[in-house]
Amino acid sequence: MTSTTLPTALPFKVADLSLAEAGRHQIRLAENEMPGLMALREEFGPSQPLAGARIMGSLHMTVQTAVLIETLVALGAKVRWVSCNIFSTQDDAAAAVAVGPTGTVDAPAGVPVFAWKGETLEEYWWCTDRAFDWTAEAAAEGEAYIGPNMILDDGGDATLLVHKGREFELAGAVPQKQPGDSQEWGVILDLLRGSLAQSSDRWTTIAAEIQGVTEETTTGVHRLYELAKTGDLLFPAINVNDSVTKSKFDNKYGIRHSLPDGLNRATDVLIGGKVAFVAGYGDVGKGSAEALRGQGARVIVSEIDPICALQAAMDGYQVTTIENVLDQVDIFVTGTGNENVITVDHLLGMKHQAIVANVGHFDNEIDMAGLEALPGAEKVEIKPQVHEWRLPNGRSILVLSEGRLMNLGNATGHPSFVMSNSFTNQVLAQLELFANNADGRYAKSVYVLPKHLDEKVARLHLDALGVVLTELTPRQAAYIGVDVNGPFKVDHYRY
Amino acid sequence: MTSTTLPTALPFKVADLSLAEAGRHQIRLAENEMPGLMALREEFGPSQPLAGARIMGSLHMTVQTAVLIETLVALGAKVRWVSCNIFSTQDDAAAAVAVGPTGTVDAPAGVPVFAWKGETLEEYWWCTDRAFDWTAEAAAEGEAYIGPNMILDDGGDATLLVHKGREFELAGAVPQKQPGDSQEWGVILDLLRGSLAQSSDRWTTIAAEIQGVTEETTTGVHRLYELAKTGDLLFPAINVNDSVTKSKFDNKYGIRHSLPDGLNRATDVLIGGKVAFVAGYGDVGKGSAEALRGQGARVIVSEIDPICALQAAMDGYQVTTIENVLDQVDIFVTGTGNENVITVDHLLGMKHQAIVANVGHFDNEIDMAGLEALPGAEKVEIKPQVHEWRLPNGRSILVLSEGRLMNLGNATGHPSFVMSNSFTNQVLAQLELFANNADGRYAKSVYVLPKHLDEKVARLHLDALGVVLTELTPRQAAYIGVDVNGPFKVDHYRY
Amino acid sequence: MTSTTLPTALPFKVADLSLAEAGRHQIRLAENEMPGLMALREEFGPSQPLAGARIMGSLHMTVQTAVLIETLVALGAKVRWVSCNIFSTQDDAAAAVAVGPTGTVDAPAGVPVFAWKGETLEEYWWCTDRAFDWTAEAAAEGEAYIGPNMILDDGGDATLLVHKGREFELAGAVPQKQPGDSQEWGVILDLLRGSLAQSSDRWTTIAAEIQGVTEETTTGVHRLYELAKTGDLLFPAINVNDSVTKSKFDNKYGIRHSLPDGLNRATDVLIGGKVAFVAGYGDVGKGSAEALRGQGARVIVSEIDPICALQAAMDGYQVTTIENVLDQVDIFVTGTGNENVITVDHLLGMKHQAIVANVGHFDNEIDMAGLEALPGAEKVEIKPQVHEWRLPNGRSILVLSEGRLMNLGNATGHPSFVMSNSFTNQVLAQLELFANNADGRYAKSVYVLPKHLDEKVARLHLDALGVVLTELTPRQAAYIGVDVNGPFKVDHYRY
Amino acid sequence: MTSTTLPTALPFKVADLSLAEAGRHQIRLAENEMPGLMALREEFGPSQPLAGARIMGSLHMTVQTAVLIETLVALGAKVRWVSCNIFSTQDDAAAAVAVGPTGTVDAPAGVPVFAWKGETLEEYWWCTDRAFDWTAEAAAEGEAYIGPNMILDDGGDATLLVHKGREFELAGAVPQKQPGDSQEWGVILDLLRGSLAQSSDRWTTIAAEIQGVTEETTTGVHRLYELAKTGDLLFPAINVNDSVTKSKFDNKYGIRHSLPDGLNRATDVLIGGKVAFVAGYGDVGKGSAEALRGQGARVIVSEIDPICALQAAMDGYQVTTIENVLDQVDIFVTGTGNENVITVDHLLGMKHQAIVANVGHFDNEIDMAGLEALPGAEKVEIKPQVHEWRLPNGRSILVLSEGRLMNLGNATGHPSFVMSNSFTNQVLAQLELFANNADGRYAKSVYVLPKHLDEKVARLHLDALGVVLTELTPRQAAYIGVDVNGPFKVDHYRY
Repeated sequence: MTSTTLPTALPFKVADLSLAEAGRHQIRLAENEMPGLMALREEFGPSQPLAGARIMGSLHMTVQTAVLIETLVALGAKVRWVSCNIFSTQDDAAAAVAVGPTGTVDAPAGVPVFAWKGETLEEYWWCTDRAFDWTAEAAAEGEAYIGPNMILDDGGDATLLVHKGREFELAGAVPQKQPGDSQEWGVILDLLRGSLAQSSDRWTTIAAEIQGVTEETTTGVHRLYELAKTGDLLFPAINVNDSVTKSKFDNKYGIRHSLPDGLNRATDVLIGGKVAFVAGYGDVGKGSAEALRGQGARVIVSEIDPICALQAAMDGYQVTTIENVLDQVDIFVTGTGNENVITVDHLLGMKHQAIVANVGHFDNEIDMAGLEALPGAEKVEIKPQVHEWRLPNGRSILVLSEGRLMNLGNATGHPSFVMSNSFTNQVLAQLELFANNADGRYAKSVYVLPKHLDEKVARLHLDALGVVLTELTPRQAAYIGVDVNGPFKVDHYRY
Repeated sequence: MTSTTLPTALPFKVADLSLAEAGRHQIRLAENEMPGLMALREEFGPSQPLAGARIMGSLHMTVQTAVLIETLVALGAKVRWVSCNIFSTQDDAAAAVAVGPTGTVDAPAGVPVFAWKGETLEEYWWCTDRAFDWTAEAAAEGEAYIGPNMILDDGGDATLLVHKGREFELAGAVPQKQPGDSQEWGVILDLLRGSLAQSSDRWTTIAAEIQGVTEETTTGVHRLYELAKTGDLLFPAINVNDSVTKSKFDNKYGIRHSLPDGLNRATDVLIGGKVAFVAGYGDVGKGSAEALRGQGARVIVSEIDPICALQAAMDGYQVTTIENVLDQVDIFVTGTGNENVITVDHLLGMKHQAIVANVGHFDNEIDMAGLEALPGAEKVEIKPQVHEWRLPNGRSILVLSEGRLMNLGNATGHPSFVMSNSFTNQVLAQLELFANNADGRYAKSVYVLPKHLDEKVARLHLDALGVVLTELTPRQAAYIGVDVNGPFKVDHYRY
Repeated sequence: MTSTTLPTALPFKVADLSLAEAGRHQIRLAENEMPGLMALREEFGPSQPLAGARIMGSLHMTVQTAVLIETLVALGAKVRWVSCNIFSTQDDAAAAVAVGPTGTVDAPAGVPVFAWKGETLEEYWWCTDRAFDWTAEAAAEGEAYIGPNMILDDGGDATLLVHKGREFELAGAVPQKQPGDSQEWGVILDLLRGSLAQSSDRWTTIAAEIQGVTEETTTGVHRLYELAKTGDLLFPAINVNDSVTKSKFDNKYGIRHSLPDGLNRATDVLIGGKVAFVAGYGDVGKGSAEALRGQGARVIVSEIDPICALQAAMDGYQVTTIENVLDQVDIFVTGTGNENVITVDHLLGMKHQAIVANVGHFDNEIDMAGLEALPGAEKVEIKPQVHEWRLPNGRSILVLSEGRLMNLGNATGHPSFVMSNSFTNQVLAQLELFANNADGRYAKSVYVLPKHLDEKVARLHLDALGVVLTELTPRQAAYIGVDVNGPFKVDHYRY
Repeated sequence: MTSTTLPTALPFKVADLSLAEAGRHQIRLAENEMPGLMALREEFGPSQPLAGARIMGSLHMTVQTAVLIETLVALGAKVRWVSCNIFSTQDDAAAAVAVGPTGTVDAPAGVPVFAWKGETLEEYWWCTDRAFDWTAEAAAEGEAYIGPNMILDDGGDATLLVHKGREFELAGAVPQKQPGDSQEWGVILDLLRGSLAQSSDRWTTIAAEIQGVTEETTTGVHRLYELAKTGDLLFPAINVNDSVTKSKFDNKYGIRHSLPDGLNRATDVLIGGKVAFVAGYGDVGKGSAEALRGQGARVIVSEIDPICALQAAMDGYQVTTIENVLDQVDIFVTGTGNENVITVDHLLGMKHQAIVANVGHFDNEIDMAGLEALPGAEKVEIKPQVHEWRLPNGRSILVLSEGRLMNLGNATGHPSFVMSNSFTNQVLAQLELFANNADGRYAKSVYVLPKHLDEKVARLHLDALGVVLTELTPRQAAYIGVDVNGPFKVDHYRY
């Protein structure tokens, strides 16, 4: 696909009325499951602390994200949005957000959304680029800015684009794609080369306008710490991922829900009685293993970290290498954040119709590139996001979502309640960096949210579950040396 | 809807190429998950023990049922099929079966299938009637029969129609629908009245041709025992439901899989942390409770039977009445086989957006009729089979599959592996009544399969799960007084 | 040990005051945990339906059995008691029963108890013989009987002795022990030879006096069915074991409790993270596996029955043979009721300090005789009932309770609440055979308790657990064709 | 009790041969379960890095601690030991350590141990004082020191005594016990007053000699951070408690094991089906809840921290206050580390024979002082560490271990494998502060062990559980930015 075929007119590719209406129904139901966000609307709606914020969001465009976006708007922000995954957009949610709660298809009153399910890589990065272009808003307001002043990121692609764009502008040239570079890197280079051809300082200007980024994922956070370590981070960042109410909830309880959901929608295969293999026993792996066991599967875990390996053993799982059990496993799940966890050799050693699913981060957890290059391998689409790969050895395997996040590609991602925790952290983080940073307390470094805000996120979700919290007496609080209202734990507490 | 609008030409309403192809893909994948049926094809295909059998099947027309149907055909049977639920048909599976593995849409070589997703009650019973009409087959073969000689039933609707049809023919008249009769009973009476107008002995003749019925469900089996008790059963019946490998597998492990699957597809609501209520702690309730707990819900159980209630308590569940916890529950699940387990008063006492789901049998487990008659209640379709009912008290509830079996209506029913167990029992039962009843060992009574066949069903499913069975030594077998090859248990053993 | 050294004076070997007092404390606490028995005292105490019953009980002499014994007495029975296992007696409970609730050590007012922890085989069978000798009671009452008129049996030893005693009396001679006969069989033959030398018809007379037996265990029930099949059963028997509230509670929930309890008291070894092997997946195996998994062990199951094997797989356990995993397992548990499940070869293939525990029935589940005969094997007592066997291969294994039931030998057996279920069945069964058999409804055959009594047992245990039962409306009861008060299930229902 | 009645001659109160032999057996078995400690003996035995260390240990004197002590000795240390709890000593383990692996009762060659099961408070603090008196060792070596140079502490009592002793010496006087002070504080003041009467600088000298303390528990660590915050900490401290392989293993998996163990040994009450209440959902509460659920109890949790409360809800537990469920609960467990979690009012509202157990830290989690002062309450000893308290309302409750840690008082504490993790951390921490602090890298502050040592502890325990670790390829390690051999996680990772 060449750039000339990229959509230019409409922010949303398929914006018909019925889609937007269906999405609106779901958003309304989801609001009931996202008590944290709704509570923030109630608490901060009157004071509009995000007035003046121009938020560029890059995060899976789902129903839950719709509630997040509309919360940001309710707090005063202007927003432009893209998905951070080519398959993860729910088109009806995107349409509903674009139309807006009070708009119509003909007179949309919502947020510019550049996202649809099943983008090409070129389309994906074009979308990301578009969400950075705030010139229309500036023109409408008679202001001089050209981009956002805040990023809300998931995986770091938006942050990457700003940093690389500025880097190449300073260098005066965009390098050529090298052998061994990924296809996607080539797409990014092409896009930035086009940008540089049009402007020598667009990304430099954008970078200067940005007051901060709040990042959702382990992978994105890892990139941020790397940038901070080398002094290359261009603006303050809040690591939302490591809020307890994010990493220990989204990664664990979200995957516990959406892994079996995705397996079921994709394959309808009975999980009970099957042998499942979970690569990695971090929070994602813990949630995966619990879900599979809860459905009656026998779960085998692999780990590189002796502490997590010991945890898996203490939780009653067999812990061994993938090679040791390759031909016994019915369902493979990767949740490591690393690459080549499942190699082509592994794929070739699997049982007939073994299922291969990734809930880690990128599609390189499974060596999809290697599989695609394997002579004699044939790819048959069973249904969208479910492919039977017929291998040269005569066996087939079922690969979900082409190796990308199957909980998003084969299901609908984490459920609303889990995302309400994550996104309440996101909103609080945006508030910190935009509204509470007048004193410049946040430098070009990576921060986590203070514990009392983390506890607040949890607190906003208790009523919905019928939880009755016990309150410390003043004497008890004094005895353990905390305030009656918290925070209750030392920073290094692990939960 | 009047009968003139009922489909007349084609056995399957929507039989286009792409549907049939999609169904065929799924059937092929399902065969890998149904090792019991595939083993029977291998064992009995050569000897064709069902040659001469004319099987009228009334059972949810899913992908798994397709593998069952094609197994029956592989063993020599002729087959006509209907679904036993207006919502449970998977259209692609139906299309694929109608087309047949070797046929085309233009030249179908499969089995006449009268079923589609979303039938009206008139259509449903018209379909059932059509599956009893074997005059075309008789004409083609130059034979004198008019109906099937075997029934494979699920819920007893097919058996009911034969018994009622014959009863009214003997009485010479079909009674009028009475106040208090269900709408469906009226539809049945209308159909039989039409039949009687055309023939005074059609159902009497069909009943005489039938050599036996094999019944899938608790409800259908209950009806059969009632008929046998009063001496009204017209042919031998095998109670497939009470094979251990059916009732303890399909009901328990099937629901364990498909309950959360249906909840997820219908609502995307996080199950973890929620309060779930399971009415009934039989096998269906046990599977439901285990699945919900496995997803992190807190499960409360209700029971009428003190033994099952004690089991629930010993398994760690709170056991109380629905009234006691009405306003605490997020997800209600009925699995009792009884009526009015959830009344309109209960519905009115629930939390906002409580989910109401039935995995028992009929839609009267929840008082749907009462809800529909409730003044001020408004029904909003969120998506097919998911309705928000806005109640006059200002709250909403979400009712799945209009109160019918949500594991079929909102998901795809039990997964293939579970159904392979049930259906292997079905095929063995058809073999018993058709092929092994030459000596008339089966009278007009209700039988269960002998234990060695039940064990055989299990045995055929072990390899696929990697199970290695331990073999008794002759001395050990003698010590416990069994044959080395089984059966291993006394008949009253409960597993 | 020769018979001259057997205790002759006192029914209980060690009957000092402090033991009896300690036992009485525990009995009082146990009464709170045995609501079924206490309810029967309340219901039947006034009418004394067991007046005239002379019950010979052979069942583990624990605190719980004390509550059973005193319940039988409260209903009017006279009782003599032995344990059915050489290690299972709790001496304080035995002492308390012998002394009686109102007696003193010097003036005991309790029940003659012939049982202590750690009997020899000679002592064990001497005790059993003594409990059959009711001549003192007869003399005191001026009656002509010589033995009991009811047996309450566990494992069938008491029933065996009567049947064999009578058989040899009819034959006029007791056979010699043959090569290959167990040591215990030799002890029995010696005892009966002594009896025959003194009386030619003692056992024949006792057999004629006995009106029935109620049997507690699978093993004992199996023997009874064998006797009934050959027409050799001398009196009616009620199979208490197969009441749902016995087999599905005692075997499953009792073992779930007492297996880890016994492992902990015996070894203090962490169960979490360990690999445990459970031979047999009947109710005992199911309870064992659940308990071990609940403590974080990884459980591997072996099975001979394909249905139970499939259940184990569906519950998420690896199912394979002991040979396949011999060197990976830390804890071996047998629960089969068969012999030689763990052979000497198996023992020699185990890891260093592997634990070997039997919760099935006899000590021949593990080939203890073979181990004792193994050249070079050395037995070191770590503490009572815990032996390190140093094997000739340089490794050690830990054998609990010398291969006998470790839940009794290393712990205190099933807890009171579980036994309350079993024993409430026992008392109801004694009532049936003694008080409700006036019409001779019970022939020399084996019966199970009617379902309404089984449900009654459950019902008597609900309040203590806070269970609130749901009541059927009359219309609902009619809908499913049962009485509002039950019974609720068909006889073949499996729970 | 006056100090004149305190033991003076022998380090161990009851040191007879059979006790020591029994203890030695258990130590030998425990070594097999403590692979971490045994590996350290192998790695560091030759280089004797603890030569010159004089370690005063204050930690429950169990079999596992015996293996710890003998590991310290094997690395070159001299050791004197006390228990840190008046009930937690296993006398046989203490005897075996005192005698030593190569010693005899008459010629002990072990470690001076001042500990026995069931000390009075006076005895307890006398023991602690004795373990600080190294004058005999100094005399034997011709050295000038008077105390230890290292403390290995559990709960901080040893550290407290040094700090308070020095503080009062500097002040020149020991204050009087005040109204409201605990009885124990009075005992400590008496002891220090006696000390001050004999020497004005004993504790000041001892404090100066000490190079560091390694602390085992949350409570002790909390005290250390308080001291560090105010600048009063007298020597460097390593917080062993917050090693992942300590806090997440000992607290969680240890309690998971020993809570049900203690309940069973104390009461023999069936846990299955009961309602259990767990106060606190930290690691101790998590382990408690999992263990109780694993035995079939229904678990209700209370929490003050919204994050932990949300975790409990997401794990499927009811979360509410103790007041809300007081009369429904059968088993109460406290695991908070706070005071007055169960008040006398709570005790008075409980069910008859409710069980009250503390696995948190001090006996003031339950208001034992209040109970003892309650008019009309009567304490009946059922057996050691199990007391029935007859309340003035006519009901009884069962209090375990007089409100102190029941996993120690009613069972044998955490099992060896768990303690091997904790104690391997302890040894590594002692090595850090004594042998690796030549460069003075440790100031008078509180440290945690570096992550690579934490991972090492885990690594040393994998083989014993059959865990096979996956190794990163260099490319994978580079991809996630870690060394192939770890450490694998950022410091704030929560596991």
